[in-house]
Amino acid sequence: MSDFDTFKGIQKKMKAYQTVLSIASWDSNTEAPKDCFPYRSEMLSIISGEHFSLTTSKEYKQAINSLLAQSEDLNDNQKREVEKAKKGLDKIDKIPKGEYIEYNKMRTMAQRVWEDAKENDDFEAFKPYLEKIINYQKKMVAYRSDTDVPYNVLLDDFEEGMNMEKYDEFFDLIKEELVPFVQEILEAKEKENDDFISRNYPKETQKEFVEYLLDVFDYNLDRGGLKESVHPFTWNTHSKDVRLTVRYLENFVFSSIFAGIHELGHALYEQQIDEVFDMTNLGNGASMGIHESQSRFYENVIGRSKEFWNVHFTKLKSLFPEQLKDVNVEAFYRGINRVEESFIRVEADELTYPLHILIRYEIERSIFNEGTNVDELPDMWNQKMKQYLNIDVDKPSNGILQDVHWSGGMFGYFPTYALGSAYAAQIYYTIKEEIDFESLIEEDKIHKINEWLKEKIHCFGSSLKPEQILKIVTGEAFNPKYYIRYLKEKYSDLYL
Amino acid sequence: MSDFDTFKGIQKKMKAYQTVLSIASWDSNTEAPKDCFPYRSEMLSIISGEHFSLTTSKEYKQAINSLLAQSEDLNDNQKREVEKAKKGLDKIDKIPKGEYIEYNKMRTMAQRVWEDAKENDDFEAFKPYLEKIINYQKKMVAYRSDTDVPYNVLLDDFEEGMNMEKYDEFFDLIKEELVPFVQEILEAKEKENDDFISRNYPKETQKEFVEYLLDVFDYNLDRGGLKESVHPFTWNTHSKDVRLTVRYLENFVFSSIFAGIHELGHALYEQQIDEVFDMTNLGNGASMGIHESQSRFYENVIGRSKEFWNVHFTKLKSLFPEQLKDVNVEAFYRGINRVEESFIRVEADELTYPLHILIRYEIERSIFNEGTNVDELPDMWNQKMKQYLNIDVDKPSNGILQDVHWSGGMFGYFPTYALGSAYAAQIYYTIKEEIDFESLIEEDKIHKINEWLKEKIHCFGSSLKPEQILKIVTGEAFNPKYYIRYLKEKYSDLYL
Repeated sequence: MSDFDTFKGIQKKMKAYQTVLSIASWDSNTEAPKDCFPYRSEMLSIISGEHFSLTTSKEYKQAINSLLAQSEDLNDNQKREVEKAKKGLDKIDKIPKGEYIEYNKMRTMAQRVWEDAKENDDFEAFKPYLEKIINYQKKMVAYRSDTDVPYNVLLDDFEEGMNMEKYDEFFDLIKEELVPFVQEILEAKEKENDDFISRNYPKETQKEFVEYLLDVFDYNLDRGGLKESVHPFTWNTHSKDVRLTVRYLENFVFSSIFAGIHELGHALYEQQIDEVFDMTNLGNGASMGIHESQSRFYENVIGRSKEFWNVHFTKLKSLFPEQLKDVNVEAFYRGINRVEESFIRVEADELTYPLHILIRYEIERSIFNEGTNVDELPDMWNQKMKQYLNIDVDKPSNGILQDVHWSGGMFGYFPTYALGSAYAAQIYYTIKEEIDFESLIEEDKIHKINEWLKEKIHCFGSSLKPEQILKIVTGEAFNPKYYIRYLKEKYSDLYL
Repeated sequence: MSDFDTFKGIQKKMKAYQTVLSIASWDSNTEAPKDCFPYRSEMLSIISGEHFSLTTSKEYKQAINSLLAQSEDLNDNQKREVEKAKKGLDKIDKIPKGEYIEYNKMRTMAQRVWEDAKENDDFEAFKPYLEKIINYQKKMVAYRSDTDVPYNVLLDDFEEGMNMEKYDEFFDLIKEELVPFVQEILEAKEKENDDFISRNYPKETQKEFVEYLLDVFDYNLDRGGLKESVHPFTWNTHSKDVRLTVRYLENFVFSSIFAGIHELGHALYEQQIDEVFDMTNLGNGASMGIHESQSRFYENVIGRSKEFWNVHFTKLKSLFPEQLKDVNVEAFYRGINRVEESFIRVEADELTYPLHILIRYEIERSIFNEGTNVDELPDMWNQKMKQYLNIDVDKPSNGILQDVHWSGGMFGYFPTYALGSAYAAQIYYTIKEEIDFESLIEEDKIHKINEWLKEKIHCFGSSLKPEQILKIVTGEAFNPKYYIRYLKEKYSDLYL
C-alpha cells in the first residue's frame, strides 16, 4: 500500500469518527433531553479518544511525513490534503499529551465558571481561569513555534496566512476611518419611528417566513434542514448534509430573519462545495474569514439591501399585516439598518460591529505580545468602549464577560469576524462589475448569485488558501479599503 | 487487570459505539435529508466495523470464556452480563466471517427488492431473495447448533427460553379458542355508527393531545422527547435518554393516540430500568416479549379501557369539539375497540391480531421444520387467512408481502408480538388483585401503576430472564389461558 493510500485510509476513518461525533453534537444542541448528558459525555469521550488516537498514530504521522518528502508525486489537491493534515498534526503533536488532556479538562471547567460569572456579573470568579487559559495558550504557542510574536501563531490558526502586521493595518484603518465616521452617523441620526421592530411576531408565522427565505435563497432541503435552537448555527458533515438553526424571538423578528440569512450564507457555501472533496479534509469552507465573508455577504450585502426588500417586503407584510400595517418598505429598510452604540457584539449593527472587534483585537494583542495582566483587562475593555463607541460599560456581563470565546481558549478568533465582513465588501465591488447584482436581487434570482459564488469561491472547499480565493475572486490581495468604502457609502446614503 | 475488568472495559467501549450509532440512526429516521445517505452509510459502516471488531476480538472472547470458567466469583448480575455477552458472541462467532458479511449485504439488497415487490404486488420478484434468506438462516442455525428443531434456535433468539413446544401449546389454544370466538363476534356485531373515526383531525391538535398523554402517563421529558416519523418507534441509548415518535394521520386520529400509547409503554419501561444497568449490557428490556407485553398493556389494557376514557374523553372532546360533537364516551369506547376481519397485521384490532400472528407462526414453522418451499408460501398464506379470518386475500401486498420482517431475515420474531399480548393479560389478572387498578386509571393516577410495574418488571432491565420476570410478577410460569380469558371477557362484554 502506498503512503498516500495509508494516509487516505486513516483520513477516511477519521471522517467516520467526525461524522458520528457531529451527528451527536447536532442532537445535543437541538433536542437531546437534559438528563442524558452525564452518560452521553462519557460515551462521546471514548469515541473522541479513538479519533484522537488515529490522528496521533505513528502510522499516520509516518505517512504524512513521507508524503511531504516526496510531494512532487502528488497533484495539487493531494498536496493540499497532506499539508492541511500536517498543520493539524503539528497543533497537537508538539504538545505533551498529558498537558493537552489537562488543558482540555480545565477548559471545560472554565466554560462553566464563565457561564456563572457572566450570570452573576463576577469577573473575579472567572479571572483565575482566564489567567490559566492564557498561560496555557502561551505555553502551547512556545511548544509549537519559536516566534517573537506569539499572537501570530494564534491568528494563523484561525485564518491561514494572516498575521499581526496585516491585521494591524486593517484595524488601524478601522480606527482612523470608522471610529469618527460612526460618531458622525450617531450624531446626525434622528429619532426614527421604528417601534414596529419590537412588536409581537408569533413564532409560527416567523417560521413560515424563514421557510420562505430558504426558498428565495435556493437552499436545497434535500441536502439539509431547518431547526430551532438556543443559538443559531450551521452544521454539516459533508456537502449533502448541511443544516441550519434559527431562534424565534417573538418581540424581535429581525433575529430569525437576519440570523437566518446569516446561517443560510454559511449553509449555501457548504452545500456548494464540490462533492469530490466530501471524503477528504478539504470538504469544508476555506477558512473562518472566508466563511464569515459568505454569511455576512448574504446577511448584510444581500439581506439588508433595499433591492431585497423591494421584492420580499410584500410577503413579510402579508404574514404580519397587523404588525406592519403602518410600515412601508423605506421605513423597514431604515429599521433593519438602524445604527446604535451598544454593549453587546452579537447584537451590534453592521456599522458598529467592527468596532467591537477592534476592541477585542487590541486586547488580545496586548495580552500575548505585551504581557498585559488579566487584572487590567476589565478597565482596558471599558476604556476602549468609551474611546471607540462612546459608551460607559455598566457591568461585566455587558463588557468583558459577554463572549464565550476566551473561556474556550479561542484567542485569535474574533478578528476573523471583521475580516469576513471586509472580504465580503471586497467581493461586493467585484461581483457588481461582473454580473447585474442589484437587478438579480430585485428580480428574485438569487440562484444566479449563488452560481457566481459557487464558481468563484464555494466549489473549491478548502483546497485553496484564503488569499488564493480572494485573488481568484477579486484579482487582488486582501484590501481593507473596500470595507471602509462600502460602509461609508451605505451609511452616508442612509443617514447623512 | 482482572478478566472482569477487561470484559467491562471492552463492554464500555462497545456501549460508546452503540451510542453514537444509535444517535445517528435516530437522526436518520427522523430528520436526516434524503441526499445524505450514500455518504452517511459509508461512514457508519466504518464505525459499525470498529464495533464488530471489538465484539469479536480475541481479548474479549478470552475474557468471556475465562469468566465463564470461574463464574462462582461473580455476583448474579455479573454472571448475567457475561452470559448475555456469550450468547451474543456465539451468534456471530460460529459463523464464518465472509459468509456473515455476504449475508448482511444480501439482506440489505433483499429489503430494497421487497419494498419494490410490495409496491408492485410482485411476489415472484421477491421470491429468489426470500429463498436465499431462508437458506442462509438454515445454514446459520446449523453452524450454531446441532438441534433437530432448527426453528427453536430462531425462537430463542427473539425470546430467550421459548421454543416450539411452548409456542405450539400457545398457538393451539389460540386456534381452538379464539378462531371460533372471533367468528362469533364478527357475526354478532351490528353496524355501529362510528364514522367519527375517519373525520378530519388536524395534526397540530393531535399533537397537543399526544403531549397531554405524555403527561397523563407520567413520561419524563427530561429523559426523553417526542417527535414525528413515518413509522412510530421508541428509541433509547440508556435510561436517561428514551424518546418516542408518532405519526399523525389527519383522517385517522386513533393512529397517533394508540400507537402513541403503545410507544409510551415501551418508553416508560426503558425509563424505569435501574440506572445501575446504564453502562452494562443489561440496561434494556428483558426480551422482545416482555417489552411487547408492556407496550400492549399500556395501549390495550389501559388505553382501550372504559375507565381511561371516562376520565380523558372530555379533554379529547375539548380539542375536537366539531369532530366529536355527536359522540359520547360509550360510543367512543366501542369505536376504539371495533373488531374487523382485515388483511393487514399492523392495522388489526386487539382481538383479531393474534390470528395474524398464528398464520405467520405456522408458516415459519413449516419453512424451518418441514422444508416447505417458497413457491408454496403465497397459497399457504391465503388459505390460512381464509381459514382463520374468513377473508380472501386479493393481492400479495395485502398478504404475504405486507411485512418487512422476512426480508430482513427476522424469522422467529412474529410470535413475540402475540406472546407479549398474552404476557400482558397474565399481568393484568395479577395487578388487579394487588392494586386497585381500574380506580387508579379512573382517578388519573397512572403513575401508581407505573410504580408497580417498575418494581415488578422494569427496574430489572434484562438482568432477569423473561420466565423469571413472569414468575416474580404473577407467581407462575407463562400461562396462555389468561389471554384467552381476557379477550373473551372484554369482547363478550362489548359484543355479545
